Amino acid sequence: MTRVRIDLFASLDGYASTTGGTSDNPMGEDWGRLTAAYAATRTFHERVLGDTSGTGTTGIDDSYVAAHFDGIGAEIMGAAMFGLHAFPDDPDWKGWWGDRPPFGTPVYVLTHTAPRPPIPMQGGTTFHFRNTAVEDVLAEATEAAGGLDVRVGGGVSTARAFLRAGLVDHLHVMIAPILLGRGTRLWDDLRGLDLTHKVTTEVAESGTIHVTFTR
Amino acid sequence: MTRVRIDLFASLDGYASTTGGTSDNPMGEDWGRLTAAYAATRTFHERVLGDTSGTGTTGIDDSYVAAHFDGIGAEIMGAAMFGLHAFPDDPDWKGWWGDRPPFGTPVYVLTHTAPRPPIPMQGGTTFHFRNTAVEDVLAEATEAAGGLDVRVGGGVSTARAFLRAGLVDHLHVMIAPILLGRGTRLWDDLRGLDLTHKVTTEVAESGTIHVTFTR
Repeated sequence: MTRVRIDLFASLDGYASTTGGTSDNPMGEDWGRLTAAYAATRTFHERVLGDTSGTGTTGIDDSYVAAHFDGIGAEIMGAAMFGLHAFPDDPDWKGWWGDRPPFGTPVYVLTHTAPRPPIPMQGGTTFHFRNTAVEDVLAEATEAAGGLDVRVGGGVSTARAFLRAGLVDHLHVMIAPILLGRGTRLWDDLRGLDLTHKVTTEVAESGTIHVTFTR
Repeated sequence: MTRVRIDLFASLDGYASTTGGTSDNPMGEDWGRLTAAYAATRTFHERVLGDTSGTGTTGIDDSYVAAHFDGIGAEIMGAAMFGLHAFPDDPDWKGWWGDRPPFGTPVYVLTHTAPRPPIPMQGGTTFHFRNTAVEDVLAEATEAAGGLDVRVGGGVSTARAFLRAGLVDHLHVMIAPILLGRGTRLWDDLRGLDLTHKVTTEVAESGTIHVTFTR
């Protein structure tokens, strides 16, 4: 059965994305610290950077990152994650993921600039643009996933919309043991999620705390 | 050398104390869930409840709780932790800790109703009342500790005042994997604490996440 899955980063104080981005460093100066353990894994090296030489960490962090890529049949993301809001009005802008995005599935981009034609990319990724309710885009993505899982890829506001709507079967948060004090807050308004989902906690060799909510 | 130590509870979403307290349940309905793993330990049974029969958990949670009680020469707390704000104007009110409080040391209570005479209790605890800056009460408590550590017992606002002033050598937070969505926020304004302190993370058998900041 198709499950709806989300993987997110957070700091210990609950910030899931960072502020202060510039055109040179669009994710902001804290992003590297927030995602360092993820970027160090062998799976990230292989699946995102295309480095198949076997470099990268292979412990607990890597096992979660590998699971993130496993069994996904369709992806949903917000407009910022597709395009970084860098070129919102450019109909030729194909996102910031390069010619071969690391998805390999249909990707449904929630954007107020829909409708626009789909963009097929190399490696099996096709970007589709939708301006619909989360339930409707999920129904379409579930159909496209063909029995595999649907991943809500982010950003934080998109992920929180699916969480608040009660649509998420599996949430994994990779918590870096750092205090950022600023950014987009992850946990607000999610009281009770630990009552509807089973919670597991695990610490990796890097000190990263992995928390999962599963139903 | 005397260290300044703090142990706190927090929910996964960063609430360190709870709301909605009543006279029957002064800590509020969430407090039991926030502190369940702590209250289950053998050390809590022994040191706080006076139950020396050996009941209670003995794993990782208990090792942190035992460390909390170890090597303390003086305690500092806020007025709410002494008196629960239940009887703020009653000079005969001796707090809510019973005749034999579980401290066994001098306890410095920060309160705007100081000066008032000290209250000696059974078992070595004496409550002293002070209305001074955190640095001044810390100097007095350090002198009284005679080379042992000073514990800032809480509540959260008192603990945060010492943290923001850069006075804390060892912070241990026992994070329950629950989302409360309300209460007093622990982490606000502590950006950078992970840069001045070494951070460790560990998960107990109960699922509780133990995070320590040490310098």
